[in-house]
Amino acid sequence: MQLKTKEVKFSTGGPLVAVINEKDATKLDLNALDRIKIKYNSVNTVNVILDITKDNTKVRPGYLGLFEETAKIIDSKKHKIVSIYPSENPFSVEAIRKKLDGKELSKKEIEFIVKDLVSNGLSDIEIAYFVAGCYKKGLTYKETVYLTKAIANEGKTIKLKNKIVADKHCVGGIPNNRTTMIVTPIIASAGLTMIKTSSRSITSPSGTSDTMEVLAKVDFTVDEIKNILKKTNGCMVWAGAMELASADSKLIKVRHPLRLDPSGLMIASILAKKAAVGSTHLLIDIPVGHGAKITNKKDGKKLKKKFEKIARALGIKTRVIFTNGSQPIGNGIGPALEARDVLYILRREPGAPKDLEEKAIMMADRLFRLTNTKASAREILESGQAYKKMKEIIKAQQGNPNILPEQIVIGKLKYDYKSKKTGSIEHIDNLRIAKIARLAGAPSNKGAGLYIYKKVSEQVKRGEKLFTIYSENREKLELAKGAIDSAIIVK
Amino acid sequence: MQLKTKEVKFSTGGPLVAVINEKDATKLDLNALDRIKIKYNSVNTVNVILDITKDNTKVRPGYLGLFEETAKIIDSKKHKIVSIYPSENPFSVEAIRKKLDGKELSKKEIEFIVKDLVSNGLSDIEIAYFVAGCYKKGLTYKETVYLTKAIANEGKTIKLKNKIVADKHCVGGIPNNRTTMIVTPIIASAGLTMIKTSSRSITSPSGTSDTMEVLAKVDFTVDEIKNILKKTNGCMVWAGAMELASADSKLIKVRHPLRLDPSGLMIASILAKKAAVGSTHLLIDIPVGHGAKITNKKDGKKLKKKFEKIARALGIKTRVIFTNGSQPIGNGIGPALEARDVLYILRREPGAPKDLEEKAIMMADRLFRLTNTKASAREILESGQAYKKMKEIIKAQQGNPNILPEQIVIGKLKYDYKSKKTGSIEHIDNLRIAKIARLAGAPSNKGAGLYIYKKVSEQVKRGEKLFTIYSENREKLELAKGAIDSAIIVK
Repeated sequence: MQLKTKEVKFSTGGPLVAVINEKDATKLDLNALDRIKIKYNSVNTVNVILDITKDNTKVRPGYLGLFEETAKIIDSKKHKIVSIYPSENPFSVEAIRKKLDGKELSKKEIEFIVKDLVSNGLSDIEIAYFVAGCYKKGLTYKETVYLTKAIANEGKTIKLKNKIVADKHCVGGIPNNRTTMIVTPIIASAGLTMIKTSSRSITSPSGTSDTMEVLAKVDFTVDEIKNILKKTNGCMVWAGAMELASADSKLIKVRHPLRLDPSGLMIASILAKKAAVGSTHLLIDIPVGHGAKITNKKDGKKLKKKFEKIARALGIKTRVIFTNGSQPIGNGIGPALEARDVLYILRREPGAPKDLEEKAIMMADRLFRLTNTKASAREILESGQAYKKMKEIIKAQQGNPNILPEQIVIGKLKYDYKSKKTGSIEHIDNLRIAKIARLAGAPSNKGAGLYIYKKVSEQVKRGEKLFTIYSENREKLELAKGAIDSAIIVK
Repeated sequence: MQLKTKEVKFSTGGPLVAVINEKDATKLDLNALDRIKIKYNSVNTVNVILDITKDNTKVRPGYLGLFEETAKIIDSKKHKIVSIYPSENPFSVEAIRKKLDGKELSKKEIEFIVKDLVSNGLSDIEIAYFVAGCYKKGLTYKETVYLTKAIANEGKTIKLKNKIVADKHCVGGIPNNRTTMIVTPIIASAGLTMIKTSSRSITSPSGTSDTMEVLAKVDFTVDEIKNILKKTNGCMVWAGAMELASADSKLIKVRHPLRLDPSGLMIASILAKKAAVGSTHLLIDIPVGHGAKITNKKDGKKLKKKFEKIARALGIKTRVIFTNGSQPIGNGIGPALEARDVLYILRREPGAPKDLEEKAIMMADRLFRLTNTKASAREILESGQAYKKMKEIIKAQQGNPNILPEQIVIGKLKYDYKSKKTGSIEHIDNLRIAKIARLAGAPSNKGAGLYIYKKVSEQVKRGEKLFTIYSENREKLELAKGAIDSAIIVK
């Protein structure tokens, strides 16, 4: 059927969609969410998802409405008349159905799903069915390996000739816990390569990229990253450069409403990033505790096994450790406050949070052991080598290497939250602390967040400060104050 | 947060959605698909699903974009400034998550899901997760009963004082098979009440309502239906009057892309319609065969058991029968051609298709037995009583009771498809026949469709007509011709 093109000045937020009038849909025996093929010149066709409207003021019979994503492919000014044809469901949709039926998917089927996910060929409903299939039945070992490779291959890759590329990853959920920014300079000081790509925050008060950005740039192209590495051996950059985020962020959007977190999808998403930078040795930190992503050791052990098996299949030597995930690690929560903690530690200053320092030393030592490197993380840190390396990295990443902790700008408005009784700290609620920091403005306001003075088991007197909230605007500070609730329990 | 309202001149196709700029979303720590509460005057609030845009030309910071469905509730001219608040996920979303986790839902949980489904409170993604949960795990007996009652109660109901309200239902998939239009007048002739509500076609060439509409009106309010029944005991009307379709059609839309047909959802959807009109006795026809919805007896038996169990819980005396579903029943396919078949039978004319006539007699007799009624369907049909009753019903439903079969207008363009060899008919493909009729224009062009001359096992000579396609326009006739393929196989 020949139709006149018309721009629907609206975005679908991803999927390629075109809309026709109900009358034309009836003629062609088409339903909403069917696939159609649009032939827009003598050579080019594009497959899109069909939407149907009854509203003649939107799209009249005889017209094809192009949503913004589709209009980027078909220029309605150049292609005034196009032909549309019914099209079979793509192979990926049949594969999703198969997964929902509880069957194992082949390499090819998973590759097609990832490809169509990346190229906006799947509707949100279809992606939801894929997530539901992965959630209910789980992903088999083979499926997870295929998915990891497919995601890694859809993006860019870095291939160095180095024999060892060390890496670390934390499963997350713990406020601050900014070990990466201490471990990376320690590892790089010892002559090993560490290409640390990190995410920006999605639901936390700060991602490693948000915190690193307080000290230096984190957005680089793959070529720029290679140049940085030549100078420094180590870097801490935003994972966006690898362009793997597309498949990931689309899955995350659909997983969000029901907070579905199938372990197969999580493992694939994490390991794909490691595979993309050619990591050879990987330390994975699984914090376990109330308010962490993993709340009990049993779940942690299952996850550990999966990680090890999949990583082995990818040729990455991997070690998984469990750490205490029941309270924040470090004192500052929010990009600037966390960056200050990191500098305190690297510069051996009195304000350094001991828990974060000790955890970072332990992790770096583990990485030395994993890579058979004779080196002491504590020595490297205490001798100032790690700080020197950090300054090199900050410089290579176009930051000011000489910045002092006290020069980091913290939110100008503050609110001290004081203990209502004398006793010892019983519990600090990770989720609540994160919420307060986010409402105060983190991570988009770099200086926003909170600073915790006391950790679990420490003594506190009535009227003594438990934490200070920092914010850059009055309204946000009030919102944050309203969420304090029982963030810290004194007994 | 206070925002200025702005109409987004676009429909979501159902869900209540409002959109804010990404900057405001970050401030409030909100993600796409979160729920927000909009307070639009001193008394009224409405909960909607949140969408987020980065595009300042669509919705600038400080503004709240109202999609058409939401704009119907909040008049942006009257309510220029509104306040929005983050809102918890509705109870129904938590229930959907529970179902996806494989747990049984309570009566209350199912009621909330149906309520939010009807009131556009769920996103397509959330509905897809509900369907996935029902598909993977199935619905338990209790869940199906709760779901059926919830759907029935969300709509309108008819409560007569009659002791017996007979009903029938066919699980479907067989072209023509218009038994309802013969059974209903037979049953009503015997003095029983039969309130037959039927659907319009969604994917078939004609629904009973489409065919009945050739002879009379089918759109009536509940009060009008009651008035018709006072005169006739029987009616054949569109099920839309009961306003149950809302939950149903929303589920169907989301089930479509992966063709998911969880039996629990199907049973609930069917029995809710029976419960809504107060049916006491119900005959269910499950056609079994290649190209029918149920392709083997084993699946049929499972479905039969479920139907009986759920119907019993609803207090409906139910009998399930299996019939031959391997080929069309009757000769005409498409609204007008089917209506003509029905009149041929009721008027005892030579053109009457024997298979449809015999099936209708058998079914009416089953209903007599089920209701302990002493009557013979064949006698009622052959004596002309059934036709007399049909004329009463047509008149009560504002049609022309004296219409003759030859006065029914059939598509003016036609194409005869002839046998290429001499032999016997081996197979008639239900799906293919339906496709041809739809492409020819059925059901929206009442006269379009096809007429089959030969059924399975009948002899045919080379060059003899197998079927004729009727259409009202040249283009559609060509489309239908192009789909003939191997609709009928001669051996």
